[in-house]
Amino acid sequence: MAKMTPRTLSGFMELLPQPQQQMERMMDILRSTYARYGFTPLDTPVIEASEVLLAKGGGDTEKQIYRFNKGDADIALRFDLTVPLAKYVALHYNDLSFPFRRYQIGKVYRGERAQRGRFREFYQADIDVIGDGKLDITNEAEIPAIIYETFTSLGLQRFQIRVNNRKILNGFYAMQGLSEKSGDIMRTVDKLDKIGAEKVRACLMDDCGLSDAQADEILKFIAIRGTNEEVLAALKGYEGRDEKFDEGLSELNTVVKYLAAFGVPEDNFAVDLTIARGLDYYTGTVYETTLLDHPEIGSVCSGGRYDNLAEYYTDRQLPGVGISIGLTRLFYVLGEQGMLNPELPTAPADVLILPMTDDLAPAIALATKLRQTGIRTQLYTEAKKFKAKMNYADKLSIPYVLFLGDDEIAQNIVTCKDMTSGEQTKLGHSDTIALIRKGIDEKNQGKVIVEK
Amino acid sequence: MAKMTPRTLSGFMELLPQPQQQMERMMDILRSTYARYGFTPLDTPVIEASEVLLAKGGGDTEKQIYRFNKGDADIALRFDLTVPLAKYVALHYNDLSFPFRRYQIGKVYRGERAQRGRFREFYQADIDVIGDGKLDITNEAEIPAIIYETFTSLGLQRFQIRVNNRKILNGFYAMQGLSEKSGDIMRTVDKLDKIGAEKVRACLMDDCGLSDAQADEILKFIAIRGTNEEVLAALKGYEGRDEKFDEGLSELNTVVKYLAAFGVPEDNFAVDLTIARGLDYYTGTVYETTLLDHPEIGSVCSGGRYDNLAEYYTDRQLPGVGISIGLTRLFYVLGEQGMLNPELPTAPADVLILPMTDDLAPAIALATKLRQTGIRTQLYTEAKKFKAKMNYADKLSIPYVLFLGDDEIAQNIVTCKDMTSGEQTKLGHSDTIALIRKGIDEKNQGKVIVEK
Repeated sequence: MAKMTPRTLSGFMELLPQPQQQMERMMDILRSTYARYGFTPLDTPVIEASEVLLAKGGGDTEKQIYRFNKGDADIALRFDLTVPLAKYVALHYNDLSFPFRRYQIGKVYRGERAQRGRFREFYQADIDVIGDGKLDITNEAEIPAIIYETFTSLGLQRFQIRVNNRKILNGFYAMQGLSEKSGDIMRTVDKLDKIGAEKVRACLMDDCGLSDAQADEILKFIAIRGTNEEVLAALKGYEGRDEKFDEGLSELNTVVKYLAAFGVPEDNFAVDLTIARGLDYYTGTVYETTLLDHPEIGSVCSGGRYDNLAEYYTDRQLPGVGISIGLTRLFYVLGEQGMLNPELPTAPADVLILPMTDDLAPAIALATKLRQTGIRTQLYTEAKKFKAKMNYADKLSIPYVLFLGDDEIAQNIVTCKDMTSGEQTKLGHSDTIALIRKGIDEKNQGKVIVEK
Repeated sequence: MAKMTPRTLSGFMELLPQPQQQMERMMDILRSTYARYGFTPLDTPVIEASEVLLAKGGGDTEKQIYRFNKGDADIALRFDLTVPLAKYVALHYNDLSFPFRRYQIGKVYRGERAQRGRFREFYQADIDVIGDGKLDITNEAEIPAIIYETFTSLGLQRFQIRVNNRKILNGFYAMQGLSEKSGDIMRTVDKLDKIGAEKVRACLMDDCGLSDAQADEILKFIAIRGTNEEVLAALKGYEGRDEKFDEGLSELNTVVKYLAAFGVPEDNFAVDLTIARGLDYYTGTVYETTLLDHPEIGSVCSGGRYDNLAEYYTDRQLPGVGISIGLTRLFYVLGEQGMLNPELPTAPADVLILPMTDDLAPAIALATKLRQTGIRTQLYTEAKKFKAKMNYADKLSIPYVLFLGDDEIAQNIVTCKDMTSGEQTKLGHSDTIALIRKGIDEKNQGKVIVEK
């Protein structure tokens, strides 16, 4: 028969079993962390009507979207989880209670140019809190706690949650009489990390048409750095000149004030006046998260407050705050950086049982017993040489191998080889189970991510 | 602004938060059960090259597939998880160890005619064991144990795993000189439950062209019923006349022999000579699972042994055995039958904290403490009347509401209302946490599915 060469499309991540286990672990941690903060899981279709997905329209979205016809339906694959959330909330409004807190971890699709580290199918992990008409600022103050808890649970310590407030920025530009140019200015300031202050200054004057004095004011403003207290004190100097600014500063004060109660250490948090997160959508607090040792990766978790989630679908005012992790890219980058913990158990099973008798009933009964205590157990019954069986356990990194021969069965014991230490024990079933339980619990203490 | 009416495409399941929690619980149970049997999770792309997906070609698949072009690529959405597995194993053969045991729970797509209870996007939950060249019969004997454990963990008791062996069927037809007509005969016999023995007999003669005597032989054969022992004894009567038959009977004997060691009660298992599961693909043991009180649903978990997983991609012989659960349809049917446990916790949080002071720090600190112990906690800070807040907890079925006012803070206690019993306690933080922990552990004992 003629064979078709098997292949996976470029830009689509397909992991081998061991990294897949690490990815699963990451997803488990995200799910359980989000759940602890009272978010409920959602799962919306991957396919939606094109006109629904593109209600907002325009931009890169339209170019990158996977859109096609099936029968007479014009349909498309979702390109993010925010538009489906907007649709969901507008559609099911009467069945939901607000604030509505949901998380969703799902695949999204963008037909980007194929490029190393760029994915056309990738997971986003999003949380959002949606209010009905209003949404209290405490929700914005809670987000850094969720980011902190998520990343420390994954094993990271050296990261910083950077926070700003769009009202402060807009208010500041209004003070300078620069409201109309604020979009251009923010885009320029956003390059500060990359091109430096001098070039930002030049761009502000040449490209945005600012005067010397105006450029100076802006550079002075974005140069405000220091501890949270220092930054807030410096911002106080601008108070009383613009209502929006004052509102934003008050919100930022609230966010900072509750950090300690939310369990976020000062070290992992910084007010940063240079971040803006896009231009139109966000209206209040904005968030970015950077790895201190890998600033080149950019933000690994971003989001912010917005005033109107579903304006394309409903007249209701639905303000919200949310963050998103680009999980597939994060996983890829962590792998590239060698930051995925190689010590983390990735075997398909905790135990491999090698029966040494013709009648398999005792070995099967032992497997059943182990599984009933929650130990992941594989029974190996292929007709192979002993060495091949041990190689199998070794290649899969299965931590324990159990041998069950006539002697063991007669004495009601089992021989257990710890594949890490090479140590062999001959103990009763319960003692063996206890020993394995302890060993795998220890191995599972490890975190998914390691910092070097 | 003109609004786009939000809608979800027909044939696409989109659940409200409470049923979604039940669905998540089902998926969690499947994942953890499969893992206990030593299966590793896989996650392959939803999109593949059309020529790869359609390597086998033909049939309904081609008509139902979601296929389209993006740029100059001819791509399609997967319509099952078996073809992607075949591709995966052929493509990554050198990186895998065999037997390769994987599970995958993922969405698949079929553009079927829209119909109540039919889905175009639906979850399949598959497990497969793939051998390299050979695969021991014990793997086939283990499958009923996995099915049993899966469904009892979900809460079902009244179900039956029905098992047959294709070699027995093929051998039996060979004995009757009916090998060439075996496809037609099996299709006819498959209707036994629906049309009854008399009509099957008529079809066998009129449509398949069998003689009186031949039809009698077949009816006699499929009438073999009874305990496993009785059926196996009756089959022994046909032994020694066809090699394939004898091989199949020996395999079936092995499967039945190890049931007890695998922990499968006789009541949940039956040898059933009428089931065949499709015509070409399966070559050995085949499985169906039916709900005793709902035979009209058909099989909720099916599969079998096959000799060649990836023949369209590789010359290697890769035999395997697998089963599949149509999860979306199962969930839908259970809902229709009122079999989803309404007592199971589906709230987004275990606890809602209502702060009664202006300074939120103490309430936030309490939330942080609860979350650190793993209790799913939501802080409610919207400016609403007390009654609206309690309604919120009530509508979401949040089981505990905590009140924290000046008195509580001064005394370092918290008022906790059990929303189920209406009981109110004023206890220290640790005692409150212990009380909540105990309560939610009890509530979580419940199973997803209830039989009536």
